[in-house]
Amino acid sequence: MTELDHTHDGSARSWVRSAGPMSDFPLQNLPLSVFKPAGAEGAFRGGIAIGDRILDLAALSDGSLLKGLAAQAARAASQPSLNALLGMGRPAWRALRHGVFALLRDDAPAGARLACETCLVPRAGAQHALPVVIGDYTDFYTSVDHALNIGRLYRPDDPLSANFRWMPIAYHGRVSSIGLSGERIRRPRGQWLAPGATTPVYGPSQRLDYELELGIYIGTGNTLGEPIGVADADGHAFGLCLLNDWSARDIQRWESTPLGPFQAKNFATTLSPWIVTMEALAPYRLPWCRAANEPQPLAHLDAEPVRQRGAFDVQLEVLLETAADRARGGAPQRLSATSFRHQYWSIAQMIAHHTAGGCNLRAGDLLGSGTVSGPGAAEAGALIELARGGVAPLALENGETRSFLADGDAVILKGWCHKPGYARIGFGECRGEILASDAPARSSPAS
Amino acid sequence: MTELDHTHDGSARSWVRSAGPMSDFPLQNLPLSVFKPAGAEGAFRGGIAIGDRILDLAALSDGSLLKGLAAQAARAASQPSLNALLGMGRPAWRALRHGVFALLRDDAPAGARLACETCLVPRAGAQHALPVVIGDYTDFYTSVDHALNIGRLYRPDDPLSANFRWMPIAYHGRVSSIGLSGERIRRPRGQWLAPGATTPVYGPSQRLDYELELGIYIGTGNTLGEPIGVADADGHAFGLCLLNDWSARDIQRWESTPLGPFQAKNFATTLSPWIVTMEALAPYRLPWCRAANEPQPLAHLDAEPVRQRGAFDVQLEVLLETAADRARGGAPQRLSATSFRHQYWSIAQMIAHHTAGGCNLRAGDLLGSGTVSGPGAAEAGALIELARGGVAPLALENGETRSFLADGDAVILKGWCHKPGYARIGFGECRGEILASDAPARSSPAS
Repeated sequence: MTELDHTHDGSARSWVRSAGPMSDFPLQNLPLSVFKPAGAEGAFRGGIAIGDRILDLAALSDGSLLKGLAAQAARAASQPSLNALLGMGRPAWRALRHGVFALLRDDAPAGARLACETCLVPRAGAQHALPVVIGDYTDFYTSVDHALNIGRLYRPDDPLSANFRWMPIAYHGRVSSIGLSGERIRRPRGQWLAPGATTPVYGPSQRLDYELELGIYIGTGNTLGEPIGVADADGHAFGLCLLNDWSARDIQRWESTPLGPFQAKNFATTLSPWIVTMEALAPYRLPWCRAANEPQPLAHLDAEPVRQRGAFDVQLEVLLETAADRARGGAPQRLSATSFRHQYWSIAQMIAHHTAGGCNLRAGDLLGSGTVSGPGAAEAGALIELARGGVAPLALENGETRSFLADGDAVILKGWCHKPGYARIGFGECRGEILASDAPARSSPAS
Repeated sequence: MTELDHTHDGSARSWVRSAGPMSDFPLQNLPLSVFKPAGAEGAFRGGIAIGDRILDLAALSDGSLLKGLAAQAARAASQPSLNALLGMGRPAWRALRHGVFALLRDDAPAGARLACETCLVPRAGAQHALPVVIGDYTDFYTSVDHALNIGRLYRPDDPLSANFRWMPIAYHGRVSSIGLSGERIRRPRGQWLAPGATTPVYGPSQRLDYELELGIYIGTGNTLGEPIGVADADGHAFGLCLLNDWSARDIQRWESTPLGPFQAKNFATTLSPWIVTMEALAPYRLPWCRAANEPQPLAHLDAEPVRQRGAFDVQLEVLLETAADRARGGAPQRLSATSFRHQYWSIAQMIAHHTAGGCNLRAGDLLGSGTVSGPGAAEAGALIELARGGVAPLALENGETRSFLADGDAVILKGWCHKPGYARIGFGECRGEILASDAPARSSPAS
């Protein structure tokens, strides 16, 4: 696993002034994405966020500021997708982080700093694309609080399925409809059975919801038929992003027996553009523990390194901006806040379970954590939980109420890590806006 | 939809003598794959099967035997994957079929025939790769006989879920573990709850099964948010192959609540290498009908063209070759046989349903039909149906019995179409062999 080193020193500062303690992207973060400068033609290329700037890795690797493995990693990251970098493995990821950290630190040699400045472009207005070509997308279901909140609505007598405490439950999701923060999504049409009805109807979903999740990008994969051991499984992860698993609850309820959700989910999934690396997240790891009165994991899902530092204290919040808020320039309202540390299953266990039967993961595969809900009522990661399935509509500060999403609603996910002695590092935001089902065609992802 | 034309004339013959009426690949079939000649280095390229030969489309497009759109299609098909050809659409597919048909027909000009002969390589020993880069794989569940056979085992009081008759149920599958006919697959390990047990175990599946399916390759896709109308939905399909959806029933039973199958399926899916085009299948279409005493489809899943010719009479059979059969050179035994025409939902309805919520399909996406089981007891497409969940083990002609697959078992799927006045066209075979869970690493797909 990643050990702490000088790149985690909370007192380190960058000569990029905007990369201060209040920025999502200080020197200690260095998240990756692919981008084009505002208004630029040509190909997308890899970049690293620093304050309000993006370090253009294509421009950087044209020069000789990086050496050896760091230079090779920057070259791999100069392409329109980062799959090649992800496939290089942790030594290359670390070399790139350390090399860029040295160039951007306030004690960098003047010459290097001058050369590096020519590789910086403004983050404002930059266009982003999906940072990798995603081969497969798997969505997990690993928050016990979310599972219980949902289970109590639909199966009050038996809210938690018997398998939940024994494996990180997952299903395969849709890759083609994965989009980026800023996208606008038509309300999906679908089929459902109204309460008391005997014949289903087809029309715009009446119970459209979001789900607060983290996305996990796989770096190095495994050979088909060769499981990944749990002890170092999260060493196969490259980094994390914010993920909104939009869900149409009426469609989901009707279609999910016996094979699980399909159209309720496959119309859209929205990601934040920046990948916060596992290296950057190292200081914010916590012990993963399973209460003594709970079933302990089977051997293939249990290992000392996981128990020591398998959890991640990523702070998360969900904001809602309604059409009325936008019209009067009002601020978005916070719907909930929690931490990823409450998750019942860890990233290492998700990866070990995914491959335990021989399934192969590939560089650039995406895992969804499943809805992140904490133990408190205000920590629920989906509207259906907050509004208890619609029986307790949420009263918004602007006077509106919500049981499910309305046309014009924009959902904004945010995330960050902070701990005394270390920097605060942010994920940026994951924003998606719901359009009417008959609105003009869904826009392509914006910046 | 594709109309019948002279390329469907059952009396047409090829100058390739092996492409006779008994071959899977007569002049009227012309299925596509990607391949390398036996022992050859270099890149995979597209090819068309004719008798015991493969027409090398890369070699063909180096010459000037094809003109216009047919030549452009052959060039697109010269790449290591056929995605570009699939994205060109039906006019290009038809042009390629008509151009190649004219070159291979016994009345082709001598000069063209001589030039064409230099583009033929033996099918025997040729290496194949997946014919397209598959972006997403969706597996359907559209045989009512299969659904009832399974339902009666697990939910005898309510065998068919209420939604089955209203929509073609589907779930997303795993792309990374899709392999080709000839592959050898380790028995998957996984987690399940033994009957009467309160604690699950992790180990090699004890209830490993196959599923007889057809694979449907999407040619032209749709824009995100823009559904495909059902009337011409199967015009978006490029062609069909045989598909074995290997399934570990013990793992599936334990993991599938509430989000559906995951590890029970994602360790392997096996495809036949040749894509039989929708053009070649045109003569074997039948009316799709829904009995008057059954619910009629909702408007977005119903259209006159579907009722007129939405079904496909593809004959299918499953063969089993045990290790003992191989040891004594015995022939595989037929386990079941049926036709795809019994499917409760048509290909057009699968595609319309998949996109009805706005989900986008892309060129090269793969759909599985779901297990194809017919109404008769001997028409079941999975072993769990034939052996009634293990209570009625199948007695094999070689004296062995099977409730589920044993290590060393090879499952062989075959398919063909035939009708008076038209040629018999075949799919080739889809073969996969089960290795012990602790056998050396799974081999890569063979020819």
